[in-house]
Amino acid sequence: MTGFVSFVSSGPGDPELLTLKAARLMGAAEVVLFDDLSSGALLYHCADGAELIAVGKRAGRPSPRQDHVSRLLVDHARTGARVVRLKSGDAGIFGRLEEEITALRAAGIGFEIVPGVTAASAAAAAAGIPLTRRGTARRVQFITGADVTGVLPEGLNWAALADPGATTVVYMGKRSFPRLAEGLIAHGLPPDTPALLAEAVGHPHARLTRRPLARLAEEIAETAGEHPALILVGPLAEG
Amino acid sequence: MTGFVSFVSSGPGDPELLTLKAARLMGAAEVVLFDDLSSGALLYHCADGAELIAVGKRAGRPSPRQDHVSRLLVDHARTGARVVRLKSGDAGIFGRLEEEITALRAAGIGFEIVPGVTAASAAAAAAGIPLTRRGTARRVQFITGADVTGVLPEGLNWAALADPGATTVVYMGKRSFPRLAEGLIAHGLPPDTPALLAEAVGHPHARLTRRPLARLAEEIAETAGEHPALILVGPLAEG
Repeated sequence: MTGFVSFVSSGPGDPELLTLKAARLMGAAEVVLFDDLSSGALLYHCADGAELIAVGKRAGRPSPRQDHVSRLLVDHARTGARVVRLKSGDAGIFGRLEEEITALRAAGIGFEIVPGVTAASAAAAAAGIPLTRRGTARRVQFITGADVTGVLPEGLNWAALADPGATTVVYMGKRSFPRLAEGLIAHGLPPDTPALLAEAVGHPHARLTRRPLARLAEEIAETAGEHPALILVGPLAEG
Repeated sequence: MTGFVSFVSSGPGDPELLTLKAARLMGAAEVVLFDDLSSGALLYHCADGAELIAVGKRAGRPSPRQDHVSRLLVDHARTGARVVRLKSGDAGIFGRLEEEITALRAAGIGFEIVPGVTAASAAAAAAGIPLTRRGTARRVQFITGADVTGVLPEGLNWAALADPGATTVVYMGKRSFPRLAEGLIAHGLPPDTPALLAEAVGHPHARLTRRPLARLAEEIAETAGEHPALILVGPLAEG
């Protein structure tokens, strides 16, 4: 009875952007642990009688501690159950996957990772643009705008970020975006670089806002929003 | 009879890593244009009677010219057909999507983009690692190792790439990797930085090779390989 855990990427929120493999594993799971961002209609793929456990974690909200989630994973796997751990977007991108893997390894429990559609791909698709373009956007990079305490991480590589020839996608970046934009501009990125705020991508209430970098930062500083948001900066954001 | 084109990301090759939406659209399409990398078992999702058109493009091989592909898309959409254009991985990442979008726009034909699982996510999942890690791999970036002529693109941002705190994923990068590695090391990335060669990810003959950066470059210089390959460089590649 060693059990097995499938880390299943649930994609950006649209239930149709789940992979066939994710849907199959969800349907076969006896226990499913899910986040706030991997809930709703997605969970219809779970089998009747499956045990669904909310382990909501979301920036800026009180949430179960990580070691509590890891403990739940280990305990359920040890019963011999087929466990699915749903992770929003692609589990490998800002999913804090490693902490849970480490706990499973320490407990001698096998696991697999099922990749998924990351939010950046979904936001670009919704905006009708690619993330890369020959010549003018030859590099795409993803950063998070919120470290574990919810603020902009220290030690950013400004030479990498303030590059007019790259597409930069900021995950969980709305709150800290005014500070990030200030840094980008201070390091030479033109204030009129195209930027795109993508809110609630993959949901019916999705909203896209295109503005020059400096103006988007101003508008974000003046507003607040509940929906998970992604910000794209770079020539392609113009659309 | 204006027609409509769905750019459908087909994921990294494993037919189960197709999204539910991709499978649905393939099943409803009257015409499907596909690449070498979006063929095989994936195409079983197409309806009986659908017209399947190979428009293979692969680095280093003779292939139809891009304007020929765009012309086919426009011509088929103009018949009023539901057209699916399959793109391997995520269509927005090194998919040369924009050239085809531009042709559709010029012809007044509507389109949608369906995002998918990009090869980097699939390679990391196969290797049992995430692409980001708090503290030590806080940025992930994707570049291509082959420009339109098949060689390493000019004008790389070395400060961005030779960053020990990032995960760098090189698409189509096997041939030019010795030159890239040389540049990375010359710009300060330690030669023993972990690296991972992921070949044929998503296929039954997938192969993962973990080596320190300098050694992987040496081995690649001495061998040749047919399978599409991805190279990850960064602390997480160690596994």
